[in-house]
Amino acid sequence: MTKNKNEMAETLVRQQIDAFVRAFCMKDLMLMMSLYAPDFVSFDIVPPLRDVGRDTYRAVWENTFTLFNDPIKIELRDVTISTDADVAFSHKLLRLHATRTNGHEVNYWERLTFCFRRVDGTWLIAHEHVSVPADLASGKAVLDLKP
Amino acid sequence: MTKNKNEMAETLVRQQIDAFVRAFCMKDLMLMMSLYAPDFVSFDIVPPLRDVGRDTYRAVWENTFTLFNDPIKIELRDVTISTDADVAFSHKLLRLHATRTNGHEVNYWERLTFCFRRVDGTWLIAHEHVSVPADLASGKAVLDLKP
Repeated sequence: MTKNKNEMAETLVRQQIDAFVRAFCMKDLMLMMSLYAPDFVSFDIVPPLRDVGRDTYRAVWENTFTLFNDPIKIELRDVTISTDADVAFSHKLLRLHATRTNGHEVNYWERLTFCFRRVDGTWLIAHEHVSVPADLASGKAVLDLKP
Repeated sequence: MTKNKNEMAETLVRQQIDAFVRAFCMKDLMLMMSLYAPDFVSFDIVPPLRDVGRDTYRAVWENTFTLFNDPIKIELRDVTISTDADVAFSHKLLRLHATRTNGHEVNYWERLTFCFRRVDGTWLIAHEHVSVPADLASGKAVLDLKP
């Protein structure tokens, strides 16, 4: 690809990432679902091992939105984007800071990978992988790491 | 891309994934490191949040190889590959079955995402994300899930 085309693709992918953050913070299910490809596959931070299909994941987001009070604060760091004509990927660290409806404060950094396919001119998330590291010796999820 | 070019790229990416499995099972550090781009970024199953650079990750693999007795058994499932001219991604489930040198048996499914860039004709792993889900309520890593 030419440098200009690459820069344009990178700008469009970045807009989708910004839209993801906005949809999460605003609990905007319609905006969130507009970002995903129909055959989307998720490796989510919580079980199961994977979710297959945009419709399956709609229910996951619907449920997630019920877990948090407003405001939901999100910070991104170390955002990297690699684009081609029709395939792209991006990885970054995401800090989620919010209060759950059960009163518990949530404040941790997670790792977030998006893989995109361009479908009819729109960059859709075909695959998402979100996680925190695990301490395999103790069996604990490690939620107190800072970048 | 033409269908033929796409199929060729997919075949080459699949060979890199197979090489990754072989390098892991055989503890072949040279083969493993040949798969990574110099500016590789890892979101590993264990802390830290991320590792930056092939040389940093070399030390991670060197250490990982010392943790396991032979044989290391690996099974892949639900391998998906999407390719373009110079960017590709692949996600899959990986079962690791082995005995640690401390005597503990390891046998769990993890989620594995690779993002590739084609560098001088070779598909190199520019980004790797490996994880198990977390039970955020209990703070535990979930190691007993099956696909």
